[in-house]
Parts: sequence; C-alpha cells; structure tokens
Amino acid sequence: MSDEHWINETLYSGWGQRFRVKRELARVQSEFQDIVVFESETHGGVLVLDGAIQITERDEFVYQEMLAHVPLLRHGLAKSVLIIGAGDGGVLRRVLQHRTIERAVMVEIDGEVIRLSKEFLPAIGGDAWSDPRADVIVGDGIEYVRNAASGTFDVIIVDSTDPVGVGEALFTDEFYQNCARILTEDGLIVNQCGVPFMQADELHETSLRRAKFFAHVSAYVAAVPTYVGGFMTLGLAGKGRSLATRPTLQEITEAAERAGILGTTRYWTPAIQNGAFDLPPYIAEHLPAI
Amino acid sequence: MSDEHWINETLYSGWGQRFRVKRELARVQSEFQDIVVFESETHGGVLVLDGAIQITERDEFVYQEMLAHVPLLRHGLAKSVLIIGAGDGGVLRRVLQHRTIERAVMVEIDGEVIRLSKEFLPAIGGDAWSDPRADVIVGDGIEYVRNAASGTFDVIIVDSTDPVGVGEALFTDEFYQNCARILTEDGLIVNQCGVPFMQADELHETSLRRAKFFAHVSAYVAAVPTYVGGFMTLGLAGKGRSLATRPTLQEITEAAERAGILGTTRYWTPAIQNGAFDLPPYIAEHLPAI
Repeated sequence: MSDEHWINETLYSGWGQRFRVKRELARVQSEFQDIVVFESETHGGVLVLDGAIQITERDEFVYQEMLAHVPLLRHGLAKSVLIIGAGDGGVLRRVLQHRTIERAVMVEIDGEVIRLSKEFLPAIGGDAWSDPRADVIVGDGIEYVRNAASGTFDVIIVDSTDPVGVGEALFTDEFYQNCARILTEDGLIVNQCGVPFMQADELHETSLRRAKFFAHVSAYVAAVPTYVGGFMTLGLAGKGRSLATRPTLQEITEAAERAGILGTTRYWTPAIQNGAFDLPPYIAEHLPAI
Repeated sequence: MSDEHWINETLYSGWGQRFRVKRELARVQSEFQDIVVFESETHGGVLVLDGAIQITERDEFVYQEMLAHVPLLRHGLAKSVLIIGAGDGGVLRRVLQHRTIERAVMVEIDGEVIRLSKEFLPAIGGDAWSDPRADVIVGDGIEYVRNAASGTFDVIIVDSTDPVGVGEALFTDEFYQNCARILTEDGLIVNQCGVPFMQADELHETSLRRAKFFAHVSAYVAAVPTYVGGFMTLGLAGKGRSLATRPTLQEITEAAERAGILGTTRYWTPAIQNGAFDLPPYIAEHLPAI
C-alpha cells in the first residue's frame, strides 16, 4: 500500500498513530495553522491541526463528555460558561445539553476550523451552532478574557491544542490571571493537559501556573482512543471552592438529573467522574505538591 | 525519513501505531509466530508478535500490574498461581512480588519468546526466572490445563495474544472448562479481552464463553499506552465467589500490605483497582447480561 493513502500523526517525533485515508476532504493553510480534514477508514471524519489529531467523529464523545460534563456537574449550579477554542463545536454541544445552562460563549481564534467543521464534521457540533443560548465568537481568547467583566462565568473550558504554536498563549500567567478574575466566586476552570506518558512536563508546568491564580488545583484522567499514549489529563482548578472533597455519587447523579445529562453519555457516568480523580502514581507524581 | 526506520503495527488494517526504530534486535520466525524485537526511540525495547505490539519496556508496568495485582488482591488469600502465556516474564515477576505467593507455574508455548525476552528485554522478567517459587514450562497451555489436577490453583492469569493465530485456543470452551476445574473453590481467572473501541466482539464473545463455566463474570479496564485505542478490558471470572460486591479500599489495602505490594506500583493503587470496575457505557454495553 502506498504512502499517500495513510496520514501519520507527527505530534511526537518517534512514535504515533496513523490512519488509512478514504478521502481527503480539505487541506487548508489558515492564518494560524495547517488544517487537514479527512475521512478515515476506521474513525469517520478526522480533524488534524499542525499534524496533531484533534478529534475524530467516532471517539470524540470521550473527550467532549469528560471536558464538559465533569466541571459543569462538579460545579452543580453553573449557568454561564466560557469555552476557549473547541472550534469543532463538540464542547459547545455537550455544554448546551445541560438544560441548566443559560449562556455559553465560545471564542475560537481560527474561523477556518469552525467553517470546515460545520461543512465536513457536522455531527460534532450538531445544532449547538444555532442554539439561542450560544454566542460563537471568532476571535482571540486571550483578548476576550482580558476584556471580559469580572465575575461573569461559572465555568471556563479551555479546549486548546498543546502548548506550542497557536495554543501557547492559553497556558500563560496573564491568561490564567484573567480567567480567575472573570470567574464567579465558586468558579471552575478546566483545560486539557496532554498525555502524561508522552508529555509529562505539560501537566506539571501548567499545574504550577494555575496554582499561582487558583486556590485549588487538581487533575483527572480520560482514556481517549485517539489521544494515544494512555490516559490524558484534564486540569481542574477552583477559585473559591476546595476540590479536596469529592461530591458523593448521589450528589453527582442529582446534578446530572437536573441538567438532563443522565443516560445520554457513552463514557461519562457519575462513578467514572469520581474515579477519574484517582490518578495512577506515574501521573500523580507530575502534579506539584501544592 | 525512509520506511525502514519505522515499524508499523498491523493489528488493525486501517489504523494503528508506528515506532521509529533505533535498532532491530531480533527477527525470528518461530514454530508458532513471527517475532520481532527492536529498540525504539521512545519506548525502549519492544516485542512484536505477528505484527501486533505485545509489550514495550517503558509502559509494560501498566498491563502487568493490572493483570497480576488485581486478581491476586481481589482473591486476597492466593498461594498458587498458573500463568498461561506471558513469555516476556513480566507477569511472572509481578506475581512473585507477592510474598504471599508460594508457587507460580508459567506455561508459554513459544520458547523463542522466552529466549528472546531474556536476551533483549531482561528487565521485564528481572530475577523472576530464577525464583525458587517459579516453575517455567515451555509447552501448550491447553494441554497443561487438560492434565492438571482439579482444585490446584487459586488464580489463573491468561496473558494471551488476541483470539487469532496461536492464541485462539485460549478462548475455547474446552480451555475455560478445564480452567474452572483446576481452580480452587474461590478461584479466579483473568484474561485480556482486547481494546473494546476497536475489538468490541472480543469482550462480548469471550465473556459469554466464560459465563458457561464460571458463576460470576466481570470485567475491568486499564489504559495501556501502547495497546492503543482507549481502555483495554481484562475479564475476571469467579468460580465460587461472587464478584458483585467489591472489597472496600481498606480490604484491598490490607491485602496489598500482606503481599508487600503497597508503594511498589506505578499504575495500580487500591482506588484504581476498585475504580477499574466502573465501565464506561460504551464498554459496558458489550458485557452480556448474565
């Protein structure tokens, strides 16, 4: 089989995944990054940014459910959510599944990612794009949090690429400081921290940075099939409320019932939500002692 | 970069992982399978059987700890263990870490896997090969369980390849029936059931088969970095003792203390052991309702 029918992920120089390509759907150099969308033989549509797999239609539910439902249900009373990045629309869709959410602002820097996702991966965003509670902004998330009013959002979800290239500014002091400012008193922020088996520094360094501006810093795991390399970690940080005590299964279940989430998920469950905070030692050792 | 410096896993026809090869250490066609051992750039030594990655030095701890410690500590009083397959020696090493274990019989069909593992991946088996409690047999596991005396083993660990090729016979009725017979009354059997995101039938079909001969059938998950595709599942079946009630964290911790395991692990913890039985719905739906 010839090379042009496979796409190799180039995220790591010496190891990675590859997909057999049924059909290339788009290949665009945007203002910010290389974007490739293709139809794979095994995973449906796949979105690739700068050589790194971002999402596949077949396994996106794992990442989206864990990135959206865990902070919203941990908060329990969230009404207003800010999403940074996530141009494929999948986080927006999962957030708006919560009938308790009144407003979701999404700020994606690259309009081309939104355009291509709507055209070629429409199931990922679904009808979230036209939900009256959604405010989709093509713009710079750094700028947005700099200018947003204090105490505005209950939860901030940062669905960034890795801290290189266009995603790098989403891991800076200034960004986290503004996030802390624009969150409400009990506000939570979640952001993806990479796959520790391959990118251990990412969890360590970004946790240290969050700890400068948030009283409570924690992390949880999800096994996302196409973020290869074992568990990925998601960093959860709290402004005013301690994350040390977990809610009971009953409390999570009740929050999910109020939100209308129970029974809609394929990865998330109340037990998985709680268990995800039990980190294997090889991951826990990268969390700073704070 | 030219193709000869990469090795592509060929387990799935349309998707998989690839490794940049520093040095090929061995390439042998044994009586049973194609064996390749190479030194990777990212994962240390890697063992490949018939094109499927079996183990890498860098992440073997995840699979070995979860395959060995979970059934032994769930049993709590195991003294005698039978290991089928596992020619790299990693399961034997983890089993013999339990100072409570008095006898571990390991039956590997392919002597070449043992020979090459000892030569090129010596850290995986460590000094387990020469432990006086170990009895390493090069032979057919099917034959072994057919001839073994009834009520002999407390735990059976089946570390097979997938149910194709040489591993196929380890998923048959006859094999499971004999395993049930040679287990003690409270005996447990564990075997790998593949990665459900890619191989959902494997969990379903082998669970049905185990249910014919074991009163209690369950499964748990582990996120093994190089068994790509999200969680892999491990099937746990019990002869006499119900698996419906989980031990408490305290009970697991005490069993681990008795065995001398506590603090030696990089993936396994008492909390991870219990949480691993909380299956995401996309996996749970493949467990037969039994």
